[in-house]
Amino acid sequence: MTGGGSGGPSGAEREAAIALACLVEPATPGVTEMVAEFGVEEALARVRAKRPSRQVAGRVDPEDTPALVDQMSRRGVRVLLPGDLEFPSQLLDLSEPPLALWVRGPLDLRVAALRSVAVVGARACTAYGERATAILAGGLAEQGWAVVSGGAFGIDAAAHRAALGVGGPTIAVMACGIDIAYPRSHDALFARIADAGLMISELPPGSQPLKHRFLARNRVIAALSRGTVVVEAARRSGAMATASRALELGREVMAVPGPITSMASSGTNRLLHETAARAVSEPSEVTALLLADANNPPAAEPHAQVGVGSAISDPRLAGLPAEVRAVLEVLPGRGGRTVEVIAERAGLAPTVCLAHLGLLEIVGLARRGHSGWRRMQ
Amino acid sequence: MTGGGSGGPSGAEREAAIALACLVEPATPGVTEMVAEFGVEEALARVRAKRPSRQVAGRVDPEDTPALVDQMSRRGVRVLLPGDLEFPSQLLDLSEPPLALWVRGPLDLRVAALRSVAVVGARACTAYGERATAILAGGLAEQGWAVVSGGAFGIDAAAHRAALGVGGPTIAVMACGIDIAYPRSHDALFARIADAGLMISELPPGSQPLKHRFLARNRVIAALSRGTVVVEAARRSGAMATASRALELGREVMAVPGPITSMASSGTNRLLHETAARAVSEPSEVTALLLADANNPPAAEPHAQVGVGSAISDPRLAGLPAEVRAVLEVLPGRGGRTVEVIAERAGLAPTVCLAHLGLLEIVGLARRGHSGWRRMQ
Repeated sequence: MTGGGSGGPSGAEREAAIALACLVEPATPGVTEMVAEFGVEEALARVRAKRPSRQVAGRVDPEDTPALVDQMSRRGVRVLLPGDLEFPSQLLDLSEPPLALWVRGPLDLRVAALRSVAVVGARACTAYGERATAILAGGLAEQGWAVVSGGAFGIDAAAHRAALGVGGPTIAVMACGIDIAYPRSHDALFARIADAGLMISELPPGSQPLKHRFLARNRVIAALSRGTVVVEAARRSGAMATASRALELGREVMAVPGPITSMASSGTNRLLHETAARAVSEPSEVTALLLADANNPPAAEPHAQVGVGSAISDPRLAGLPAEVRAVLEVLPGRGGRTVEVIAERAGLAPTVCLAHLGLLEIVGLARRGHSGWRRMQ
Repeated sequence: MTGGGSGGPSGAEREAAIALACLVEPATPGVTEMVAEFGVEEALARVRAKRPSRQVAGRVDPEDTPALVDQMSRRGVRVLLPGDLEFPSQLLDLSEPPLALWVRGPLDLRVAALRSVAVVGARACTAYGERATAILAGGLAEQGWAVVSGGAFGIDAAAHRAALGVGGPTIAVMACGIDIAYPRSHDALFARIADAGLMISELPPGSQPLKHRFLARNRVIAALSRGTVVVEAARRSGAMATASRALELGREVMAVPGPITSMASSGTNRLLHETAARAVSEPSEVTALLLADANNPPAAEPHAQVGVGSAISDPRLAGLPAEVRAVLEVLPGRGGRTVEVIAERAGLAPTVCLAHLGLLEIVGLARRGHSGWRRMQ
């Protein structure tokens, strides 16, 4: 994947959109409406006029954004705008979607997010919480589900590590600029995620992890993922906030049951007691719930919204990204082929390949059997 | 409480009903219908004619039942028949209700069952399960809820002991005759329950605990209680069967969440994953669910079905058992009085008094505050 411009705004409009995203704080009410009403260039002018003495979020001067984009691009970071092919359409379920996403990593964000599940929880988790995270996140990633989390200490880090450990896809959604490692001691973890999965942030580079930005970030985790699993959480915690957001968005919310004698499970057990959250003990229980949801998707599947032509005649394939089609073309019609072989033949990294296989499984074009993956007709 | 004859069948009909109950195995399909169609004496004759060479359940000869009733009465055991004032009407929700109940203990079964909750679970429980049982059953019994269980090893015994430990009401529903201690090593526990709570069985004295009788017994636990809490259970177990029965009967079913890594919680976590069972972590969560149910009771409250006159003019009090009225009469209108003081003034055992207070709270006539119980107008 190269920079995410295809399909979205271009030229002056694109520049204005990125500049606007660099000015306003995430989830600022009214900005999306203003852009829809006046266009992005006029919206940018209004935001600048409203606060002449300083930028709204006190960050990047609009004059400097082209240079910033160039500089980040040299560091492997691409910018996605709503409308870009790689921008996940489910983020538009938010009342204030991200105005832009800064993304680093080899996966296609839209494709990975199609088959993604957030695994979140307490920073101060227990050994049980780490074990439960390893079981669930590891099992999900093994089946090609992208494990989305927040890169924090505790459950978040355990979730990313479990996915990386099985060579599966994982996405870290940051509450600071993508060029900042927070927490700092996770810099090696973040480097591994950027190598094999995706690091993403709606904040422009250089942004510090301020308190309100964690709440704004949590809404992105909730909206991006098909469902959210809370592993361990105290009753008032960021993970509980993410679960609330996911419930509001109509996403599947799941909680890992834990001892009623453990404070670290008090929030998850509360979720099970008083919300629609479902108890999950095994990866297969998570996927069954998410695939049941997928049969009644809340919004149209993105490949149906994209008009790009396809060499394959099946109308379901119209608009599939080239890499996904490459995977499809090397799938056997009978028997099965391992991810490694498929990846080699398609000329892709196994992790990337696994994410694409996941998409193909969701749309009914591939199935995973005992002997590997095969094409479904 | 004396023998439970008041309000129910009497004379020859009563004798025939007990004889029939001594002949047929619990939950035998069609017996209730036959009694309704032909009357109990004709039903008894038909059952005897059908199997002339031996009794249906191979137990007590009808000629011997009056002597058996006398003998058990001398041992403090009373027999309750459907229609008796003390026979819990909610058992009639069963397709084959008990034909009779053999009961030992100082509580009024109907009153205690009005505010009862089953706490059941695995024989092979863990230390966590015992702790969770102590928290929940102890807390519930402390608030006057009768803890119903099956007297088995593990969770059942922990539930009875927790209730006894706080001086609260508890009911053991046996899968054998009430004169048999099973398991044998629980004979001291059963003696304590008979002293302070209730031992009950639908099987005639002398009946052995055969395998199918446990399943029949479980349906009585499910029907008798307002709700069932499963603390720990493997996926295929007696406690899960009780939960299924309770769900079928429209009773509130609750499960204690536990580690997904523990086999002893695999059934409870499964209940939370795939049934309407609610996760409960605290006694207050259990009572909130049960009292919400009580506001929409599945059947009429028993005191409304009973026509016994009352010295108190409030129509809600018509039909209240004399002991319950005695409690009501010593409740203060302001402030509060402890259970011990109320019990002394009403001339009742504190355990009995607590069960009556529970009933009064349900019907809105009493409330428990920080300084004790008071009367509500």
